[in-house]
Amino acid sequence: MIESREIRLKARPQGMPTDECFELATVGLPEISDGEVLVRNLWMSVDPYMRGRMDDVESYIQPFQIGEPLEGGAIGQVVASKNSELAVGDFVESMLGWREYFIANQGMIDGDPANPLDGLHKRDPSLLPLQSYLGIAGMPGMTAYSGLVLLAKARAGDTVFVSGAAGAVGSTVCQIAKIKGCTVVGSAGSEKKVKWLKDTAGVDAAFNYKKVSSVSDALSKVAPRGIDVYFENVGGEHLTAAIEHMNDYGRIALCGLIADYNEPSGTEEHGLFMQILAKQVRVQGFIVTSSYDQYPKFLNELAGWIREGKIKWEETVLEGIENAPAAFLGLFSGRNTGKMLVKLADPAV
Amino acid sequence: MIESREIRLKARPQGMPTDECFELATVGLPEISDGEVLVRNLWMSVDPYMRGRMDDVESYIQPFQIGEPLEGGAIGQVVASKNSELAVGDFVESMLGWREYFIANQGMIDGDPANPLDGLHKRDPSLLPLQSYLGIAGMPGMTAYSGLVLLAKARAGDTVFVSGAAGAVGSTVCQIAKIKGCTVVGSAGSEKKVKWLKDTAGVDAAFNYKKVSSVSDALSKVAPRGIDVYFENVGGEHLTAAIEHMNDYGRIALCGLIADYNEPSGTEEHGLFMQILAKQVRVQGFIVTSSYDQYPKFLNELAGWIREGKIKWEETVLEGIENAPAAFLGLFSGRNTGKMLVKLADPAV
Repeated sequence: MIESREIRLKARPQGMPTDECFELATVGLPEISDGEVLVRNLWMSVDPYMRGRMDDVESYIQPFQIGEPLEGGAIGQVVASKNSELAVGDFVESMLGWREYFIANQGMIDGDPANPLDGLHKRDPSLLPLQSYLGIAGMPGMTAYSGLVLLAKARAGDTVFVSGAAGAVGSTVCQIAKIKGCTVVGSAGSEKKVKWLKDTAGVDAAFNYKKVSSVSDALSKVAPRGIDVYFENVGGEHLTAAIEHMNDYGRIALCGLIADYNEPSGTEEHGLFMQILAKQVRVQGFIVTSSYDQYPKFLNELAGWIREGKIKWEETVLEGIENAPAAFLGLFSGRNTGKMLVKLADPAV
Repeated sequence: MIESREIRLKARPQGMPTDECFELATVGLPEISDGEVLVRNLWMSVDPYMRGRMDDVESYIQPFQIGEPLEGGAIGQVVASKNSELAVGDFVESMLGWREYFIANQGMIDGDPANPLDGLHKRDPSLLPLQSYLGIAGMPGMTAYSGLVLLAKARAGDTVFVSGAAGAVGSTVCQIAKIKGCTVVGSAGSEKKVKWLKDTAGVDAAFNYKKVSSVSDALSKVAPRGIDVYFENVGGEHLTAAIEHMNDYGRIALCGLIADYNEPSGTEEHGLFMQILAKQVRVQGFIVTSSYDQYPKFLNELAGWIREGKIKWEETVLEGIENAPAAFLGLFSGRNTGKMLVKLADPAV
């Protein structure tokens, strides 16, 4: 019998979590059976997204259950094995953190094929330090890469603003953006972090958001040509200020809204962005003139649809230039069905 | 001397525009000179976006000037010509609406190469009714196509929700979405419009937003499987409700926010979405697990960057499972630089 300590959810937080939300418990683990392994965790990860799992709310991952141990990324070592795939001494990454030991059977070792983070994954300590698989080479690093490179498609010459820039995700975003040839601006919450960003991460500018008059003013100074890509880890005032400073065709990778996580009755606005994040929605502002290179293609397709009787349209017509204001004002009271037009004259024959 | 009546901006509106914002004036046009044409407008367009040009605010197009005629799409006929490119009787589209006649010189005929809507464009009345170039075959139609097809990439099987569905843009969106094999749900502001949407445009469901308890309740009924694409013409309650009903990976084409155009002190939220629209910003919510098929590629790139010394990282480490809650809580007070980790044990050798 092995004794293993684990952290359980004792109570759901109201707003900011406190020590009272957690309890430390000890469980006894039995001998392993055929097909099972015993893993001793060496490192465990704590991540901001776990705050969401503490609420009893359906989201993109299941909520933690009261009285049960929490879950999260961990790196462990196999200390007993009756499974041919894993030998004693192997290092494995799992989502079974928040506990010192665990027993995994074949189903747990294989994991949920729909969830790439589930299951047990062998990790090689000679390639990278073991714990880096929980950080730069793990979920936070991959988060930085997917948001900045795969989604926002940061390009050389872009000005990239990163909030929470000294965190696990943000610090990786900053450095990948520099590698890609971007101008990088970061915000963080202490002078020490700002110094690290400038001296070690090599960003072009950084500011301590707790020491500036406003995030918007700080951005006016450090990003005078505006922002092309905003990598959002924070929310709140940062999001509002970044949108204000965005350039045309800017991209916002909505990764985290940590400032809003502990606000049970956040503003409606932040509720909307939280939903956009959690549902992985893409919101695209657009002005038609930017797509006019496709106008000939559209006209051609449209003519075909009209010939086939697939498109109908309505017009609401007022006559005479003197009625143009009334036609315009009617748009806001819904006077029109279909296109509102003013007829000024008949063509000459 | 030809007398031409025109509508000028008399005063900028505060909130909803009124008749007092406009004045009807008559000007005398001189004889045309070499290279010029005299055009008589037959049709002029009124569009919601013109409301933005009535404010003295820099946006994606210049504001109207007080005392000057307004501008907008128009179809006219050349009634006198000293220009070899345009003959008397030709039909032309221009942005010189809100007036009965205008004289165009070569520069005006050619237009601004950076603005595809500028200049004079010959239109053929045998292909489509002349006025349709201001509607279904013009800017509103192209707006529908670019938002739905080019940006939101609506696909067969998607549920598409269209607000302002009976308007010039919305009615085209609905029908193109049906052609693409989507399930289409529309909202409009009268029973007559709802009937037109169902009977003529052929949408799957439509509701009168003035007669439902809330837009969200109406969506629960008409889009029980959620929304994959939202084509936004309205803003306000519609946007909030649509976000609530969006499915994972949904796309929102932010085309218009007419409900907010006349709100001089709109909510901050709506101000943010207005900026996202006007700057053509893309906001992309994302969860890293959706990109894990790219993890091997990332690890490979990362290993290279680390070898080349281009990536550094920090760790903040607490020791012992009993300190895991403190590590987690420290994330929200910014205790960490780089990845926050808990070390549970040293590996066995």
